[in-house]
Amino acid sequence: MTIGVAVLGSTGSVGTSTLRVLQRQRDRFHVVALTAFGSEELLKQQAAGFGADFVGLVNGSNGAGAAGCIGSDCLVEAATHPDVEIVVNAIVGAAGLEATVAALKAQKRVALANKETLVMAGDLVTRTARECGGELIPVDSEHSAVLQCITGRPEIELKRLILTASGGPFREWDRDRLKTARVEDALRHPTWQMGRKITVDSATLANKALEVIEAHHLFGLPYDAVEVVVHPQSIVHAFTEFVDGSVLAQVGFPTMELPILYALTHPERVQDDATRAFDPIEAGPLTFEAVRHDDFPTFSLGVEAGRTGGTQPTVFNAANEVAVRSFLEGRIEFGRIPDVIENVLNAHQVTTADDLVAVVEADRWARKETENRC
Amino acid sequence: MTIGVAVLGSTGSVGTSTLRVLQRQRDRFHVVALTAFGSEELLKQQAAGFGADFVGLVNGSNGAGAAGCIGSDCLVEAATHPDVEIVVNAIVGAAGLEATVAALKAQKRVALANKETLVMAGDLVTRTARECGGELIPVDSEHSAVLQCITGRPEIELKRLILTASGGPFREWDRDRLKTARVEDALRHPTWQMGRKITVDSATLANKALEVIEAHHLFGLPYDAVEVVVHPQSIVHAFTEFVDGSVLAQVGFPTMELPILYALTHPERVQDDATRAFDPIEAGPLTFEAVRHDDFPTFSLGVEAGRTGGTQPTVFNAANEVAVRSFLEGRIEFGRIPDVIENVLNAHQVTTADDLVAVVEADRWARKETENRC
Repeated sequence: MTIGVAVLGSTGSVGTSTLRVLQRQRDRFHVVALTAFGSEELLKQQAAGFGADFVGLVNGSNGAGAAGCIGSDCLVEAATHPDVEIVVNAIVGAAGLEATVAALKAQKRVALANKETLVMAGDLVTRTARECGGELIPVDSEHSAVLQCITGRPEIELKRLILTASGGPFREWDRDRLKTARVEDALRHPTWQMGRKITVDSATLANKALEVIEAHHLFGLPYDAVEVVVHPQSIVHAFTEFVDGSVLAQVGFPTMELPILYALTHPERVQDDATRAFDPIEAGPLTFEAVRHDDFPTFSLGVEAGRTGGTQPTVFNAANEVAVRSFLEGRIEFGRIPDVIENVLNAHQVTTADDLVAVVEADRWARKETENRC
Repeated sequence: MTIGVAVLGSTGSVGTSTLRVLQRQRDRFHVVALTAFGSEELLKQQAAGFGADFVGLVNGSNGAGAAGCIGSDCLVEAATHPDVEIVVNAIVGAAGLEATVAALKAQKRVALANKETLVMAGDLVTRTARECGGELIPVDSEHSAVLQCITGRPEIELKRLILTASGGPFREWDRDRLKTARVEDALRHPTWQMGRKITVDSATLANKALEVIEAHHLFGLPYDAVEVVVHPQSIVHAFTEFVDGSVLAQVGFPTMELPILYALTHPERVQDDATRAFDPIEAGPLTFEAVRHDDFPTFSLGVEAGRTGGTQPTVFNAANEVAVRSFLEGRIEFGRIPDVIENVLNAHQVTTADDLVAVVEADRWARKETENRC
């Protein structure tokens, strides 16, 4: 019997990588459910190719044919499908949170590429996983790196993480030049091929702030124990320090397929030859630099929101999403992104984030508030 | 109750580092037995400081006072002492082999810094560990790095190792200059503070060949799956590739204390703040180069001896030891070391190495044969 998998967001960057991995590993896994936001044609092809039992289109019109299920309810339906053991949550945005919680309550393993899940509701989600017996496995390369280094060891042996950041396309730009960066500049990521929103998040380092918040929740570490270092080559994905002072790292040429595969098979590893074999000489000199906090204020805003906790990280995430969209649509300049986010964060009355209602409410408030400022 | 430890070779470089670790970790460990080759004064101080129950001096005169036991028998006696659970074997040279085998037969954990054990009798020693229930834990930084990366995972998931070599003091010397290298040049190791013999072995890369042979035995990998890359900064201690293509590495500023501590506590990690915290920025750019096989022929000779197997690695090791001593004593030039070793290897009639007698015989033959050529 092979293991049933649901892929939420199957037509996006992580989704298509996941299907490539599942295709290679079809002796171990089979696709039960696929969902997409709006790419109906591709979804239809995927569903036919993998013989998916359940197909959901969030933003579709009835009778379109590809999907057996239309609308946002299809995410939870796919995530809780009885034949599914692993839910790959590759949804971009807040819509991923509800699906994660539903899957964990149904005791599934959630292979999590949806950052919003842990940023918006980290305490709630990790508690749900603990209490319901669901499992939360990161797909992000940085968090997968940490998980790979601590697998089999108790949390108490973990001391400190250093997540790496490529530094994005603006690593060497000075502050004045940064203010006038164009959309095409921001989309030119040096090492990773990703979607537009996350690529801009790499340019502002917002992405790395979200990852710090995720790491805090995933690995139970205080914020002071989650550091970030700029590493332009993106070969070392994270450093993991233990209580005895020893440091392990996971390294390799950038590919999402490895962390995806690992999230499916953890704690085991299975034979897979499709990714490029690591060669330290080819990987070239590995360099490390400090984060330029002053020039990338979005990073500090995000980490501070994480430290504040409650609904503040949700507000950071929502404000960032809206501000980035405004930038991509040419409505605000690159340099305005952190200003807008900061103003919204300052205007927010932080409350606890103990239930999804409070979180969703803060998310809506922040989106509206940010729209008004863009 | 704390764990009883024997330190064989307590006055050498690894031995004194071990005692520093044991001093810090005295809540977990106590010293039961200490042995040294000839440094009686230091041994006496150590024995008093740690309250050792058993003190042995290999090369001492009776009635000298420090030692309760004189002569080479004291090694096995210390290694099999009933109050000892862990034997740190930091003996330099072939004398370490018998102590390892005796300790394994007595079901001790052997924290192994003695290269000769696995080089001379890898099959025999690993079989003894398996059959008798003893445990073999490497102390070498490279092998400890690998062990740290695979702890908790089955051997079948391991695919390939890349051990790192600093390249030694002659990394950038051309072939002609290498031939005339002086003793003081060879002893100028760029990253590690070690004994004289092993420092010369780093300069010829003989040390790295011995480590390849050790890795083959420790981790059950074929020679083709144990690679070496030159990494002048000595920050990454080894790369460990798994069957899924993922690579873990153990990294850190060079120190023997971490691998020693890990060998004592494996698979657990304990709080220890004495080693310098890792900082990737301070560690500087990490560079990797291919081994210059043609210019460091001792390396290839050693790996080939390993591949040949039987008594051939013993002969390589013995010939290397004698040739290095001749070099240190000014009797042969640096460039002659590989020539002498190659001649001895070529003259050897390889036999199986199934028992200690055959191994010790080959060792003696090779030493005599090498002396005649120096």
